[in-house]
Amino acid sequence: MSSRRVALDAMGGDHAPGTAVDGALLARDEHGVDVVLVGPGDQLHRAMAVRGARRLPVVAASQVVGMAEDPVSGVRAKPSASVRVGARLIAAGEAAALVSAGSTGATLAAALLDIGRLPGVRRPAVAALLPIPAAAGGAVVLVDAGGNADAHPDALAAYARMGDAYARVRGVVAPRVGLLNVGAEPGKGNALARATYALLDGGERFVGNVEPDAVLAGDVDVLITDGFTGNVFLKALEAASHAFGARRLAADGERAAAVLVGIAGEVLVSHGAAGAGQIAAALRTASTVAAGRLSQRIAERLA
Amino acid sequence: MSSRRVALDAMGGDHAPGTAVDGALLARDEHGVDVVLVGPGDQLHRAMAVRGARRLPVVAASQVVGMAEDPVSGVRAKPSASVRVGARLIAAGEAAALVSAGSTGATLAAALLDIGRLPGVRRPAVAALLPIPAAAGGAVVLVDAGGNADAHPDALAAYARMGDAYARVRGVVAPRVGLLNVGAEPGKGNALARATYALLDGGERFVGNVEPDAVLAGDVDVLITDGFTGNVFLKALEAASHAFGARRLAADGERAAAVLVGIAGEVLVSHGAAGAGQIAAALRTASTVAAGRLSQRIAERLA
Repeated sequence: MSSRRVALDAMGGDHAPGTAVDGALLARDEHGVDVVLVGPGDQLHRAMAVRGARRLPVVAASQVVGMAEDPVSGVRAKPSASVRVGARLIAAGEAAALVSAGSTGATLAAALLDIGRLPGVRRPAVAALLPIPAAAGGAVVLVDAGGNADAHPDALAAYARMGDAYARVRGVVAPRVGLLNVGAEPGKGNALARATYALLDGGERFVGNVEPDAVLAGDVDVLITDGFTGNVFLKALEAASHAFGARRLAADGERAAAVLVGIAGEVLVSHGAAGAGQIAAALRTASTVAAGRLSQRIAERLA
Repeated sequence: MSSRRVALDAMGGDHAPGTAVDGALLARDEHGVDVVLVGPGDQLHRAMAVRGARRLPVVAASQVVGMAEDPVSGVRAKPSASVRVGARLIAAGEAAALVSAGSTGATLAAALLDIGRLPGVRRPAVAALLPIPAAAGGAVVLVDAGGNADAHPDALAAYARMGDAYARVRGVVAPRVGLLNVGAEPGKGNALARATYALLDGGERFVGNVEPDAVLAGDVDVLITDGFTGNVFLKALEAASHAFGARRLAADGERAAAVLVGIAGEVLVSHGAAGAGQIAAALRTASTVAAGRLSQRIAERLA
C-alpha cells in the first residue's frame, strides 16, 4: 500500500457521490493527495467520466445505507456498505486513513466493527480543530467535540493525551492543554470538571481551567471537555461566527474534518453538508494524520 | 415603600463605589428609576458631592467584604455588609429589587441568608438575557446561566417555568421554551438532557431540543440547560462576539444584569467589571422585574 493513501467513503454525505468525486479530484489535483474512492464502481466511474477527469482508483462496495434507514443499524446490517469496506481497507493496511461525510455515529460504528479500539479505550471520542489564529498551529484541538455526551474523568484525562498527540502530529512542539470551564480558578465547574482537574493537575503542559475567551485568545492548543459541552461549544462558535458575519470558523477548511480518536487506525468524519472544497480539505487533513501515524502515537501515549 | 424602588449594593464590583454612584445617577436621571444606594454613608455622600449631583437616598451599611476575603464566607461573616443590608431591604419590603455587581456567589449567599428561597426550590439559578434580535422581546431568557453547575432533571423542568415567568414579565405573550442540546431530534444529548426532555415533552410551548444556531436564529424565547453548559454557552457567545468584532452581545445593556430565580424576592447580579452604563441598565432591568413581581409569578408557576 501507499503509506499515505486515503480512502474516501464516496456514498457518505448529503450530496454523495457527486460531491465526493469532486472533492477527491480536487484533493488529488490541487494537493497531491493519493485518494481511493469506495462505493458502487459503475456509479463512480460514470461520475468521473461525466467530469472528463483522469480516473481515481475505486474499491467496489455493493451496499448503500439508504436515507430512510437508521444509519447506525444500517451500517451494522450491511457489511458491504461503503463506509465498512473503507474501514476494512484500514484494517487490512490497504489504506492509511478513511474519510466519510456520512453520519458520525455510522462511521464510528463501522470503525468499531471493522477496525476496533485501541487498548484501554472504552469509547472513542471526536477530535475537531477549532481554527484559532492565535493558537500554535493556527488551531485548537478540541476533544471531545461530540463523541460521548456522558464521560468519566478518566476518559477526559485520556482525551488530554489523545489531543496532545494530535497537536504534535500537526507540528505543534509543546502543546498546552486546557480544561474547558466556567472559571480559571481550581475548584471551578461541575463535578466532572473538578475531578478531571484533579487528575490533570501537575501535568507538565496542563495550563488548568480555561474559559471560552481564553480559548479564542489562543491560550491553549488542546482543549478538553465532555462531548456534550464540547459539541455545544463548537456549535456556539460556529453559529456566532455566522450570525456575526465573520464566517471565519464556518468557512475554514480544516474544520471540515474531525478525527475519531481511540480507534486503532485513522478515521475522520466530515460534515454531511460538506462541499467539494471541504471534502478536499478533509482528505488533506487525513493525509497529515496518516503521515503522522496518529493512532499509533495515541496508543503509545495511553500505554 | 415605593413599589419600584431599587436598592443598589454600592460596594459591589471592581470600581465601587464610584461606578455604582455614576450608574445610579444615570438610571435616575435618564430612565427615571427610583434608586437607593446601600453602603457607607459618608463615602457615598462624598462621591455624590464630588459629582455635584442631586443626592440619592442612602441606606447605611457599615461593613465591607474586602478584596482579599473569600466573598461567600465574607458575606456570611458580615451581617452589615452592603449586599446583606440590601437583601434585608427586600425582605422587609423597603425596596422592590436589589442589584449587586459583587460576586454572584456572594450575592446568592446574602439572598439565601436574608431573603430565602421560594417554596420547592432547592437551589436558585441564574436567569440571563441573551440579546437575540430575532427572539420575541429581542432577547432569550437563559436558565441556568451559571448558578448550579450540576443539576437534576426536575431542577431543569423548574427552570422552564421560571424562564417562562421571566419572559412574560418582559412582555412576551406566549414564550417558546427550548432545551439546549447537540441535536434537534428527541433522544439526543447527555443523560441530563434526555431525562429533562422526557419531563418537558408535551408541554404546551415546549419546542424541544435546540442547537446553538436555532437559538441565535430566534427559534426560542426561553432556553433551558444546566449551569455549567449554560455558562460555557453564554461565555462562548460573548467571546465570539468580541473575537469576530461584532460586540453586539457584549455591548448590550440588558446582558448587564441576570436575575437570581428561585429567591423569594427580586435580586439581580451585574458584572464585576460593569461600567456606569451597565449598572444603569441593570437598575432598569431590576425595575422591570420588580414591576412584574417576578418572584411572585415564579412562586405561582411552581405551586
